[in-house]
Amino acid sequence: MSQITALDTFDLRFPTSRMLDGSDAMNPDPDYSAAYAILRTDDDGPDGHGFVFTIGRGNDVQVAAIEALRPMLVGADVEALLADPGEAWRRLVHDSQLRWLGPEKGVMHMAIGAVVNALWDLAAKRAGVPLWRLLSDLSPEQIVDLVDFRYLEDALTPAEALELLRAAAPGKAERAARLVADGFPAYTTSPGWLGYDDAKLARLTREALDAGFTQIKLKVGGDLDDDVRRLRIAREICGPDVRIAVDANQRWGVDEAVRWVKELAPFDPWWVEEPTSPDDILGHAAIAEAIAPVRVATGEHVANRVMFKQLLQARATQFVQIDATRVAGVNENVAILLLAAKFGVPVCPHAGGVGLCEAVQHLAMFDYVAVSGSTEDRILEYVDHLHEHFADPVRVENGRYRAPELPGASTEILVPSLVAHRYPDGSVWR
Amino acid sequence: MSQITALDTFDLRFPTSRMLDGSDAMNPDPDYSAAYAILRTDDDGPDGHGFVFTIGRGNDVQVAAIEALRPMLVGADVEALLADPGEAWRRLVHDSQLRWLGPEKGVMHMAIGAVVNALWDLAAKRAGVPLWRLLSDLSPEQIVDLVDFRYLEDALTPAEALELLRAAAPGKAERAARLVADGFPAYTTSPGWLGYDDAKLARLTREALDAGFTQIKLKVGGDLDDDVRRLRIAREICGPDVRIAVDANQRWGVDEAVRWVKELAPFDPWWVEEPTSPDDILGHAAIAEAIAPVRVATGEHVANRVMFKQLLQARATQFVQIDATRVAGVNENVAILLLAAKFGVPVCPHAGGVGLCEAVQHLAMFDYVAVSGSTEDRILEYVDHLHEHFADPVRVENGRYRAPELPGASTEILVPSLVAHRYPDGSVWR
Repeated sequence: MSQITALDTFDLRFPTSRMLDGSDAMNPDPDYSAAYAILRTDDDGPDGHGFVFTIGRGNDVQVAAIEALRPMLVGADVEALLADPGEAWRRLVHDSQLRWLGPEKGVMHMAIGAVVNALWDLAAKRAGVPLWRLLSDLSPEQIVDLVDFRYLEDALTPAEALELLRAAAPGKAERAARLVADGFPAYTTSPGWLGYDDAKLARLTREALDAGFTQIKLKVGGDLDDDVRRLRIAREICGPDVRIAVDANQRWGVDEAVRWVKELAPFDPWWVEEPTSPDDILGHAAIAEAIAPVRVATGEHVANRVMFKQLLQARATQFVQIDATRVAGVNENVAILLLAAKFGVPVCPHAGGVGLCEAVQHLAMFDYVAVSGSTEDRILEYVDHLHEHFADPVRVENGRYRAPELPGASTEILVPSLVAHRYPDGSVWR
Repeated sequence: MSQITALDTFDLRFPTSRMLDGSDAMNPDPDYSAAYAILRTDDDGPDGHGFVFTIGRGNDVQVAAIEALRPMLVGADVEALLADPGEAWRRLVHDSQLRWLGPEKGVMHMAIGAVVNALWDLAAKRAGVPLWRLLSDLSPEQIVDLVDFRYLEDALTPAEALELLRAAAPGKAERAARLVADGFPAYTTSPGWLGYDDAKLARLTREALDAGFTQIKLKVGGDLDDDVRRLRIAREICGPDVRIAVDANQRWGVDEAVRWVKELAPFDPWWVEEPTSPDDILGHAAIAEAIAPVRVATGEHVANRVMFKQLLQARATQFVQIDATRVAGVNENVAILLLAAKFGVPVCPHAGGVGLCEAVQHLAMFDYVAVSGSTEDRILEYVDHLHEHFADPVRVENGRYRAPELPGASTEILVPSLVAHRYPDGSVWR
């Protein structure tokens, strides 16, 4: 029997604002950051690593929220925790006092996500398999048990979820083999940051095509004339067959979004991402209806499964962009994958930042192997930033993610990076 | 010219769980708490006081979030801040890095609410008037300038808001005088906590009627048979004319809510509060349609104005229950009052906890004097807990709130209470 002996936290920040990497219409100067958690045990086995991605200021608040969970974890029996991850999730999310701080949204909910993801990293390492495979090897019943169906049953019952998973089960082994052989499709956002000039945009677009990508993404929403010019440059380089998604990062109101997107429509955007507030389900539905056949994508700032449920019920989004660290970890993302499958909407995860590619690839691959069973219109964001800090960095080749092979959730940051990027005392910040 | 010299914070907790005061179906053991902020200046004038209400664990996280705002406030020019409160709000809410932690929801958003409310307390004290009067005396143009209309304009434009306020302006002086003379209608939740036995429920219901209340509220959602029995007891004591609201505190899914409320309908509940997740706009709309003529009330956990907008657009709630410390302070609540007025839905604020009655009464009174212009179906929650800790406690007489007379927002806690209830080192907790 082993116990959790410590929950160690780190306020890690990377000075990305110095290069305008990651700049968009709402986030002009992000310093990519991780509120990072390590769950340690009293046996000789591995530790569990998880984090919340933030963009700088407030990362300390996020760390404080993770620390508030310490009494619920330290001293707990590791085998018991990992034997019933659905119950572990419910205990954390439904704590009768902490719940008030959301409920189920914002800093406290994301903090739970970090420790839930650290528990899954620990589970996968102890099982000696990558997380995507650990999840895919669960039975349909075990997968359903991960999910809290409270507030979901008007859209998806446990019985319906079970039916979906059982229907997907026969092909799992074949799809897992294909995933290992061929990888998972990726698109790149690297060319399209708003802070880049036209020459850099054009150069990076060409490099993306040369690297084998069949979809890129451009940030929009700062200035309409700029957006039209930048989209024209990209479309000229890409030709008609490479998909170009655009991303407004919540910049617009409903009517403004419709007007703006109509001006961009001649350049055939594959989707329009975050056209307005992530909370505005009815607004997204109105936008989606008005701009069709251009489609809406959202999710990276959608607070929880109840919001995703409604986006799907209202046909407000045509792509579900899960994020590995916005909701309460793997379990809640499994709920969202099941909802998306029920509504027949493809999941195209948000990534980038620091570690989001590493973390979310497992969920996209699990979705393909065990839930949706398809890669049609599924594609995983890729940004080539900060992977060098990870023990098991993503491997993207010829426009596709290779399936992770090492045990764990790929969320572990290397010790020298933990030391150097610790804010404010690490060498990078001193 | 004076400056903000300090933002002092306090983790204050009150051991209310020892008495089961405040117990309901989702919150069985709250320790009412305040993440408390004092803005100090370098002149001889007053300080500004504000807080976030929480229910215990995690209050330290909420304090950390308030502290993250310190660099944006300390050193700022007081007159400039108070001269343009709309701009001050936007600077805090739209900080390009902190925004990621919500956006506009949860711990970080509530922290902004605490300092925004502290600024309003400071403004009202410096003006020598209670907050409700300071707000009511603003011109329609000044009130519109308090509000950030981003994401609202599909439901309410600044021009429409101005029109609403101008229509209400001629009667302001008369309504203010009537408010001072007659007070504002209150209902009491004191009889109905789930932890109380039937005898205590009956006794407190009788006491509420004797005290002049014409509406009470009962917690429900734990056990249906218990709810039916308790509602029958209360209805027998109240007779047909006293209104009895019921409050499920988010306990149900959509279908469960409909089934449960139909069983309670014979006892004529005035409203059903928080039947399901506060995030579930479509769920509330479905419930409201199914249980009519019983009406839905919600708001105390609704994260921001974009969510309120949709609840109103979807006709999902028939009463808007603003909370003084859930959203980003006075400015955002003004936006919500304007939305409610546009949709013709009465505002019945959430109160109770510690200090929520003190804080929110000003907003209900401002709504009556300057926005909705009506008390029809408007009523303000009252719970007789912890008022003795406040410098300007609420005064409820014959079932009505008396209008505050002292300068400020009534949010100031007495120094001995700050010292005794500080967690974990105050005398109450040692």
